Amino acid sequence: MKKIVLLRHGESVWNKENRFTGWTDVDLSDAGIKEAQKAGKSLAENGFVFEKAFTSYLKRAVKTLNVVLDQMNLDWIPVEKSWRLNEKHYGMLQGLNKAETAAKYGADQVLIWRRSYDIAPNALAMDDAASPRMDIRYKELNDNEIPLTESLSDTVKRAVPYWQNVIFPELKTHNQIIVVAHGNSLRGIVKYLKNISNEDIVNFNIPTAIPYVFDFDDDLNLKNDYFLGDEDEIKKLMDAVANQAQKK
Amino acid sequence: MKKIVLLRHGESVWNKENRFTGWTDVDLSDAGIKEAQKAGKSLAENGFVFEKAFTSYLKRAVKTLNVVLDQMNLDWIPVEKSWRLNEKHYGMLQGLNKAETAAKYGADQVLIWRRSYDIAPNALAMDDAASPRMDIRYKELNDNEIPLTESLSDTVKRAVPYWQNVIFPELKTHNQIIVVAHGNSLRGIVKYLKNISNEDIVNFNIPTAIPYVFDFDDDLNLKNDYFLGDEDEIKKLMDAVANQAQKK
Repeated sequence: MKKIVLLRHGESVWNKENRFTGWTDVDLSDAGIKEAQKAGKSLAENGFVFEKAFTSYLKRAVKTLNVVLDQMNLDWIPVEKSWRLNEKHYGMLQGLNKAETAAKYGADQVLIWRRSYDIAPNALAMDDAASPRMDIRYKELNDNEIPLTESLSDTVKRAVPYWQNVIFPELKTHNQIIVVAHGNSLRGIVKYLKNISNEDIVNFNIPTAIPYVFDFDDDLNLKNDYFLGDEDEIKKLMDAVANQAQKK
Repeated sequence: MKKIVLLRHGESVWNKENRFTGWTDVDLSDAGIKEAQKAGKSLAENGFVFEKAFTSYLKRAVKTLNVVLDQMNLDWIPVEKSWRLNEKHYGMLQGLNKAETAAKYGADQVLIWRRSYDIAPNALAMDDAASPRMDIRYKELNDNEIPLTESLSDTVKRAVPYWQNVIFPELKTHNQIIVVAHGNSLRGIVKYLKNISNEDIVNFNIPTAIPYVFDFDDDLNLKNDYFLGDEDEIKKLMDAVANQAQKK
């Protein structure tokens, strides 16, 4: 079986503070680094040997990947990075604490912003210092590609083509690939792979740093998918993500 | 001015034990990670913004690069890895302590192995478990490319074409590039860039984790080269490398 493993980055310093991150380039927390080490050890123990890796332009994903590859002694494999794997852009919410935002706008509005499929948070202003337009890493993007906010639908529309045109074709010449990205860009890929509805994908919570394995046969048909690890622990992690808006 | 920075990886756990490393994939020591952090901070403070990075297939170089880019918030830039930037292959000496080897074979013989331009240490056997033939990362190399030992001349012959054909052409479309590699692969590049003789290059010692900056004009002519940092400190570090064979 050919395998692609999807991995959501470990805890960031803003996850910890329960703030909306989006495209803000926040670092991993110490706990996040430990999560990444654990994921790498688990993948090595289960015999995975990746031949190629993909990640986003954001530090918390790149570093999670670096730590995983280091644990597996696969530091040397080729890594490709793309803004298309970035987290959903959270517009004006970026930097705000999720509980504060809930107190201000109401938990329902926050849940709409976080979990509706096609409603985006209010956009950043064009000239906002936090806009990706001000960041050299996005200088090669067209104006119509640079988001000032995104709905999940917008994130899916830019992540899935990267899966289709860049990541998935690599499976023709490689047996094992790892993709380290973010809650919503990975939702987009999982939605596409498993044909999940707009309504259901918003309630599908990918736990951080738990390898999500997709098996493909030699004709590249998806045969099976599963999380690598203890079932109860994974359930607990998925619930924790779902409950973040209620947290203090 | 366009700039390419050469950087030798920080201290490895075997540098610390004074053992021949070569293609053995040993990790950075804690001191090596601190060196890399310091190099990254210094590059950031001096206004460097790399657009592309190159490194070897060896963990100590890849991790040095990762730490440097992290310090500079450039985790996202493209990184290309090649076996051609690997350290000189030390044949049968890999794993031996430098002082023990000197005691056994005599300091002169060790100096010949370490510092002659075209005499290689005794080769590994074809089927030695430590041979690169046994390592999947080199599976795409031809039999005549896989070394079982190398002289500095051999290292130069495989590193310089990579500089000429892959790294240097990137300067047409990028302004700043970083190359993180090893004492001898970097010697090869410096020998080529500065037209240093076979006799002189063996005595040219590149300190670990001190950025070595090469300035090029818009026609890609080399205009200037210098180490970034305190002159006295750099002199001390270069002498320390030269004196390793005498160390206990």
